[in-house]
Amino acid sequence: MEPKPGDKVKIRTVKEEIECRLLESPQSEIYLVKLESGYNIGVKKEDVIELKKAKSKRKKEKKEKKSQKGKVKVKTRKNLPKIDMIITGGTISSRLDPETGAVKWLTKPSELFRFYPEMFDIVNVRKVKVPFMKASENMDFKDWQKIAKEVEESLNDNEVEGVIITHGTDFLHYTSAALSFFLSGLNKPVVLTYSQRSSDRASSDATLNLQCSARAAISDIAEVMLVGHANINDDFCYALPGVKVRKMHTSRRDAFKVINDKPLARVWPDRIEAIKGYRERNNKKKVKLDISFNDKIALVKFYPGMDPEIFDFLSQKYEGVVVEVSGLGHLATGEARKNLLPAIKKVIDNGLVICAAPQTIYGRLDPFVYSPGRELLKAGVIFLEDMLPETALVKLGFVLGHSVWKNKIKEKMLENISGEINKRLEE
Amino acid sequence: MEPKPGDKVKIRTVKEEIECRLLESPQSEIYLVKLESGYNIGVKKEDVIELKKAKSKRKKEKKEKKSQKGKVKVKTRKNLPKIDMIITGGTISSRLDPETGAVKWLTKPSELFRFYPEMFDIVNVRKVKVPFMKASENMDFKDWQKIAKEVEESLNDNEVEGVIITHGTDFLHYTSAALSFFLSGLNKPVVLTYSQRSSDRASSDATLNLQCSARAAISDIAEVMLVGHANINDDFCYALPGVKVRKMHTSRRDAFKVINDKPLARVWPDRIEAIKGYRERNNKKKVKLDISFNDKIALVKFYPGMDPEIFDFLSQKYEGVVVEVSGLGHLATGEARKNLLPAIKKVIDNGLVICAAPQTIYGRLDPFVYSPGRELLKAGVIFLEDMLPETALVKLGFVLGHSVWKNKIKEKMLENISGEINKRLEE
Repeated sequence: MEPKPGDKVKIRTVKEEIECRLLESPQSEIYLVKLESGYNIGVKKEDVIELKKAKSKRKKEKKEKKSQKGKVKVKTRKNLPKIDMIITGGTISSRLDPETGAVKWLTKPSELFRFYPEMFDIVNVRKVKVPFMKASENMDFKDWQKIAKEVEESLNDNEVEGVIITHGTDFLHYTSAALSFFLSGLNKPVVLTYSQRSSDRASSDATLNLQCSARAAISDIAEVMLVGHANINDDFCYALPGVKVRKMHTSRRDAFKVINDKPLARVWPDRIEAIKGYRERNNKKKVKLDISFNDKIALVKFYPGMDPEIFDFLSQKYEGVVVEVSGLGHLATGEARKNLLPAIKKVIDNGLVICAAPQTIYGRLDPFVYSPGRELLKAGVIFLEDMLPETALVKLGFVLGHSVWKNKIKEKMLENISGEINKRLEE
Repeated sequence: MEPKPGDKVKIRTVKEEIECRLLESPQSEIYLVKLESGYNIGVKKEDVIELKKAKSKRKKEKKEKKSQKGKVKVKTRKNLPKIDMIITGGTISSRLDPETGAVKWLTKPSELFRFYPEMFDIVNVRKVKVPFMKASENMDFKDWQKIAKEVEESLNDNEVEGVIITHGTDFLHYTSAALSFFLSGLNKPVVLTYSQRSSDRASSDATLNLQCSARAAISDIAEVMLVGHANINDDFCYALPGVKVRKMHTSRRDAFKVINDKPLARVWPDRIEAIKGYRERNNKKKVKLDISFNDKIALVKFYPGMDPEIFDFLSQKYEGVVVEVSGLGHLATGEARKNLLPAIKKVIDNGLVICAAPQTIYGRLDPFVYSPGRELLKAGVIFLEDMLPETALVKLGFVLGHSVWKNKIKEKMLENISGEINKRLEE
């Protein structure tokens, strides 16, 4: 019988023999397979000498599967602090169905407990909220708003000490920035976490991330923070400030890095050590929610030879644009074959808000040093200092969403609302 | 008499007293000034209590200026190896005119020698070539082509041991990528270097960078490499591979970082130590030049809520686009409010080449892991593994510039032409 997707197989090629699970392939010329390590790879059909079913381990799997079907009780310990969990999708909430290769979501406390029992030694999960289940690259501002509403409700409940949000990694830093602007006067910790390996993989990074998230959620740090592996070892996590963080690696467990700032804290399952100043917990306070947002915004990265016409296109569709400028704050000007300055002047005169953020990611803009910077400043470009382009885009939508700020957009973009500008940043 | 741009002044504000040089200001509400440290800052006029000329140091400066006008002889030592220098502009070739605040270029060997005498203990500069003088953000492929021609001519001259190119920092990594593709079968070192501080500043990083560049240019490493500070101390440089390097900081001396690879070598003024394998010098060989380029290309960074219409715009104007995708290789698909997949399928069917490169910068794409990646792959998106988006854009222009490769664009984009794909990259 021909092996089909879902089957465990042995593939022999000229170079090696692989034991793996066959998946549905996106290309007819390759076999897509999942390795024991959890990685998927494509094997060229032309390289395959033999492909056969590997039956031996099948029974063991069936047995395992059966045992998983048994009911698992969620441990609740009376004396543990209570938190709420908001589950939104992503690898951390997913599990590969070994039969079909499709992803299944974990949404119930009992499922969470089965895969991540360790966090329940630190906290009681009072409620699990599931506003939606999505990969994070499929989210937009409406999803950020939904999460923010859930967070507000939880934080303003006297029973709850903090909130943990599990989330896909790709655009987690956009959501953490959005929550940082939407929630003001935070009273309790808001922790976002993730995993880069799904729960069905032995080496999943979710266990440590969730343990440390639980520790951070009951700590004194009343900030929006992203908690995850500090390095590729499974030893401790960082709590990173929600507006100063970026996914900096496609696959590493420590994919998230603090940019132009310090981590808020080091976190272990059993303790947390602050690294920099933070807003302290105040359970008596109420957090304020403001989810006004204007999504007529865009992010554009400047590159050599960029065409000025792009600005006409942007001007027709959007009210604000973040441009990732080069160096200290430059775009092609006078000496360039394609001078962008006239186009930028024109669209700004027509009312488009243009902000500049560094495409180097690290460091601060300084438009005063060279003439292109000074000319762009003169034209009305708003230079956002050391703000991340991603954070800048979210902030621009937030600021443009407030009609009362219509006449002070520049002032608000340069106001340090939630730590997005680091005045103390050194070279 | 009112101080005017170019004057040394004392400014007293509520907070401090600053001695500085007044520059032409881009905004009427601020004074733009250059500090002793070389930094420019803006001082709000409303904060200024007193502004007056600082006459005391004037005489000393005039004297210094006078002494600079005297002729300086270039040291040439018969027994030192010969190199050619190609000067293209940027901070390293600039000097602030203290009178006007304008930038002046250094283009003659004698001027170079005055500011950077140390490198002339290592090499003899046979020729200084000046194809143009530009800030690097104002360059495009035509400038890369001009530089490549000069490099070819120099490398194929028996007298010359290697070439040093001085260049602005902002888009230096684009030029280094272009030279890596334009020049094949390299026979001798091609060194690009820069500075983040201009020559008029005491703390300029140019001296060490040029010394180490001279050392690298006469070494055995026949590669296109970027030589500059390895850290913020003035102790040694790295030689970084031209296709695996990116400006990662707006202002630091060690702004350039190797991405998804190792440095080629550690370089001191008096020695060089290889870190990874390299192509060895062969003075008897001739380098080959191929500067074919199609500039109907664009770079686009995906962000949450991105509008599918952008792909129609791109399709009308360009033949190839590099999209900075999220995570392992994702864009908004089925679950998203704005699904980009139909638009991408349409433009690919109409002939637009779409390549994907990681917006995390670090790490490798793997479109097989999640369904958005697999769907994009099926639609015909070319996933460029761990290639930098900037290198990918240059490579795409190079590949599309060759009509003979018309039917194997994907194959060429995934062929490791100059080390732009690192197959050995680990997590």
